[in-house]
Amino acid sequence: MKYINQATLKQTIRVRPDNSFKGTYGHITLVGGNANFGGAIIMATMAAVYSGAGLVTTLTDPANKTSIHAQLPEAMVADYHNVDTLTSSVQGADVIVIGCGLGTDAEALAVLKTVFKTVTPEQLLIIDGSAITMVATEHLSLPDARIILTPHQIEWQRLSGIKLADQSDVARNQTVRDQLNAIVVLKSHRTQVYTKDDVYENTAGTPAQATGGMGDTLAGMVGGFVAQFANKENAVAAAVYAHSAIADQLAQNQYVVLPHQIIHHIPQFMKQNEADK
Amino acid sequence: MKYINQATLKQTIRVRPDNSFKGTYGHITLVGGNANFGGAIIMATMAAVYSGAGLVTTLTDPANKTSIHAQLPEAMVADYHNVDTLTSSVQGADVIVIGCGLGTDAEALAVLKTVFKTVTPEQLLIIDGSAITMVATEHLSLPDARIILTPHQIEWQRLSGIKLADQSDVARNQTVRDQLNAIVVLKSHRTQVYTKDDVYENTAGTPAQATGGMGDTLAGMVGGFVAQFANKENAVAAAVYAHSAIADQLAQNQYVVLPHQIIHHIPQFMKQNEADK
Amino acid sequence: MKYINQATLKQTIRVRPDNSFKGTYGHITLVGGNANFGGAIIMATMAAVYSGAGLVTTLTDPANKTSIHAQLPEAMVADYHNVDTLTSSVQGADVIVIGCGLGTDAEALAVLKTVFKTVTPEQLLIIDGSAITMVATEHLSLPDARIILTPHQIEWQRLSGIKLADQSDVARNQTVRDQLNAIVVLKSHRTQVYTKDDVYENTAGTPAQATGGMGDTLAGMVGGFVAQFANKENAVAAAVYAHSAIADQLAQNQYVVLPHQIIHHIPQFMKQNEADK
Amino acid sequence: MKYINQATLKQTIRVRPDNSFKGTYGHITLVGGNANFGGAIIMATMAAVYSGAGLVTTLTDPANKTSIHAQLPEAMVADYHNVDTLTSSVQGADVIVIGCGLGTDAEALAVLKTVFKTVTPEQLLIIDGSAITMVATEHLSLPDARIILTPHQIEWQRLSGIKLADQSDVARNQTVRDQLNAIVVLKSHRTQVYTKDDVYENTAGTPAQATGGMGDTLAGMVGGFVAQFANKENAVAAAVYAHSAIADQLAQNQYVVLPHQIIHHIPQFMKQNEADK
Repeated sequence: MKYINQATLKQTIRVRPDNSFKGTYGHITLVGGNANFGGAIIMATMAAVYSGAGLVTTLTDPANKTSIHAQLPEAMVADYHNVDTLTSSVQGADVIVIGCGLGTDAEALAVLKTVFKTVTPEQLLIIDGSAITMVATEHLSLPDARIILTPHQIEWQRLSGIKLADQSDVARNQTVRDQLNAIVVLKSHRTQVYTKDDVYENTAGTPAQATGGMGDTLAGMVGGFVAQFANKENAVAAAVYAHSAIADQLAQNQYVVLPHQIIHHIPQFMKQNEADK
Repeated sequence: MKYINQATLKQTIRVRPDNSFKGTYGHITLVGGNANFGGAIIMATMAAVYSGAGLVTTLTDPANKTSIHAQLPEAMVADYHNVDTLTSSVQGADVIVIGCGLGTDAEALAVLKTVFKTVTPEQLLIIDGSAITMVATEHLSLPDARIILTPHQIEWQRLSGIKLADQSDVARNQTVRDQLNAIVVLKSHRTQVYTKDDVYENTAGTPAQATGGMGDTLAGMVGGFVAQFANKENAVAAAVYAHSAIADQLAQNQYVVLPHQIIHHIPQFMKQNEADK
Repeated sequence: MKYINQATLKQTIRVRPDNSFKGTYGHITLVGGNANFGGAIIMATMAAVYSGAGLVTTLTDPANKTSIHAQLPEAMVADYHNVDTLTSSVQGADVIVIGCGLGTDAEALAVLKTVFKTVTPEQLLIIDGSAITMVATEHLSLPDARIILTPHQIEWQRLSGIKLADQSDVARNQTVRDQLNAIVVLKSHRTQVYTKDDVYENTAGTPAQATGGMGDTLAGMVGGFVAQFANKENAVAAAVYAHSAIADQLAQNQYVVLPHQIIHHIPQFMKQNEADK
Repeated sequence: MKYINQATLKQTIRVRPDNSFKGTYGHITLVGGNANFGGAIIMATMAAVYSGAGLVTTLTDPANKTSIHAQLPEAMVADYHNVDTLTSSVQGADVIVIGCGLGTDAEALAVLKTVFKTVTPEQLLIIDGSAITMVATEHLSLPDARIILTPHQIEWQRLSGIKLADQSDVARNQTVRDQLNAIVVLKSHRTQVYTKDDVYENTAGTPAQATGGMGDTLAGMVGGFVAQFANKENAVAAAVYAHSAIADQLAQNQYVVLPHQIIHHIPQFMKQNEADK
């Protein structure tokens, strides 16, 4: 077991090269947000943008378009019901994040299957929330891509078959991870990141974060970090730590820390923790 | 008569245990906001989220969905016209808040009756605004649940039959409260909280608060506090005090204090007044 | 000619009495904002709320509902096409503001006529923007109410027949004012307020304010001030001065001052300039 | 080659004359923002308003109306599908900005052609983004107006035929500019401004700006600056520098700088850099 801490950030967040442009920092396509759970995809989208992704496109139910743009004009937004648009948006991305507020109905399943059918081995695919649940309940095979799963404990139980009470068994989690051939971010009080060679545990985090939308925010941050930083294991670990460490800072003065508040502090936090020149 | 003051906060706002998650802090379902009074349910929803509730779902007219999400992606939003959705959202909640901006037309009455039919004895039900008016005018029986009523003086007149000029008669208010078997928050210049065993009077508050939306904000805060804190009488009293005390702080520098400004200061205020470790 | 300055504020902005409630500070109904000029009614509404009006209702094209609530849940919003709603909202108000972004088409004229037909002699009616133009071009008689007109120079030319170049003739403006039997706020580089007995000139203001929306903001502030303060001439003058003096403060650090920035500073500015206790 | 720096600002940003009004600072009409790329026109519109333009009207897909007004009530918004509205809005403007998020489909092309047909020689026309692409791919003749083109390097390749690798050849860029008879803002790591007599290179800018929406923001700022300042070459150069210099300031504390954050700092930045009195 290794620990994720401030040093992880310094090893991950590179000083941006002077001669770079938005393509240097990746194109992320996020897919999620049905008519009821629009807030989830708003938070994930904001997190991706504030983490520094070069270009961000969100495929969602049209009901969410105005509320995204009302607070984040930086994101492009399109309708995930349009299969052609969905397919081309996934094809054009370096990183895809799917599942935040997607739901688990027939429509959601169709969207998920289209994404799974479209991704290619070079692309990074982050599977979150209800997309994980559908993989489990619909017995879907994971596509051939560089996959990152971000389950909370109940989603991990569904996917891995490991009961919540048994999830402290790191080796057992790792065995399932090996079968999935993915980076697994197992979210809990002390989130763990399972990679091919290592298991990392987060050292930051506060009960002030125990509020809806934290997971969606983390999924968007993971997307933003892996889009920008070469070492993907480090990028995931750094996103996990940054998410909690920002909350720790805010929790010194707040009883509860809301997801959008964490998001607004990402640019400052990353600057404070970028690599030494 | 007891007085609600800063000590009430310290006795109520516990230090959050490290190993907690969003379920620890309760699931609130708010029901309200017709097509004209959407602002009321927006403020109640924001107040619940900023008070630290674990999960917040708002059942409202679809016209209010985008404006809620535009400023608060943390809330889930669904259509209260859908009886199945309304019923399951009430069933899934620990705390229900009904009445903010609900109106008193046939549609509103149908929504109220569905909620009354669905709640169970273990659930906390906060009845506010036009829902109180409908209970009075439609002679509805209160359901078997742990009920909190938050009338202003005219609503209390409608419900209790006690004329405004006679409401300074604490014993008389208490007698009606005993019949209702509820916690009654009687809102006025100096709000009083009537419980089974005691009457509490608020010691905070400012005329800078005399503006629309204050009651909706208080209803949401009461929801957020009772969702989190074990002693429900204390939780209600603490919410009443916090709402006014934040306004007192802001009124030192503002001629008028708007509800959304109070809401934004809840997390800091609660941190400053949490229990000593 | 008298001058409006900080002393006007101190004479106008009373210390709020402890035992007051939202009814003490008046109910304002604003009418305006067609499908293209929604921004105007948003700014007027915000200005009324931030000035401390007790209750604010906005009658507008439904296209503007979500954008109002997205930044100002404190206002109630209804559709001005519904004659019953429009009529009852006007009847329920202490102060009516009409004209911000209303336009001059047939629909706008119908709305204006309904308002003129509904107001009563005790009510304050602020006529702004395109409503002034329609009064002039449609030769409408002003209704029997306590009227405040807020024309810019071209609107005043339309209404009074006094050419822009001749508007420096104070006596001539006053003569027309006497015929209109209204308070006239003649907006310019140095705005003048014409009342029955006096003419006041504003001493504050900055070219950083020369941007769209300033007039709508002033109309909303005038509404907020006359709703709260007993001496209506003073209230109008104080609103004119406050609007400019806040801009003067902001312009020390800003090349341009936007209407919504002025609005956000109203509560602090009023507190700094309330009457001595 | 000349360099754009702080001195350019001091030569450009005049102290506003006391007796000025919104007409003094120009009327800008922006045209762009289809149903998917609404964020682009939101950012351009905000940039124009915060730069100090006197009046700003945005012609866009109606889907973008609410999200614009939710954060910027100062802009007027109308539907660009309505040819009469589009034509009269262009006719009424001093400056037109076209292309931000316009797309390149048949609808976009029709809008572009209407604008090209309507503009007059005295008007300033800023052509950005997909409008540049359509000029190139549809072989459109530029209309007789005072034209400013703001291509990024790939758009410049499309328009000029000069391959990206050859764009360091300043003389070659200048030759094409002469044929186009326009001010060309060639956006890159170090943006260059080509005018009739000179070539200017920006000395500010940071890789923290490498994120979507920066170009739209610049287009809006260029519009705002040329609407206000007499020397159009200087105005364009000053807008280019201000856009980057604000980002440089913010990047001292932020790993990424978002377009809307730059926009919010324009008024302060312009004040700090206005001409000496």
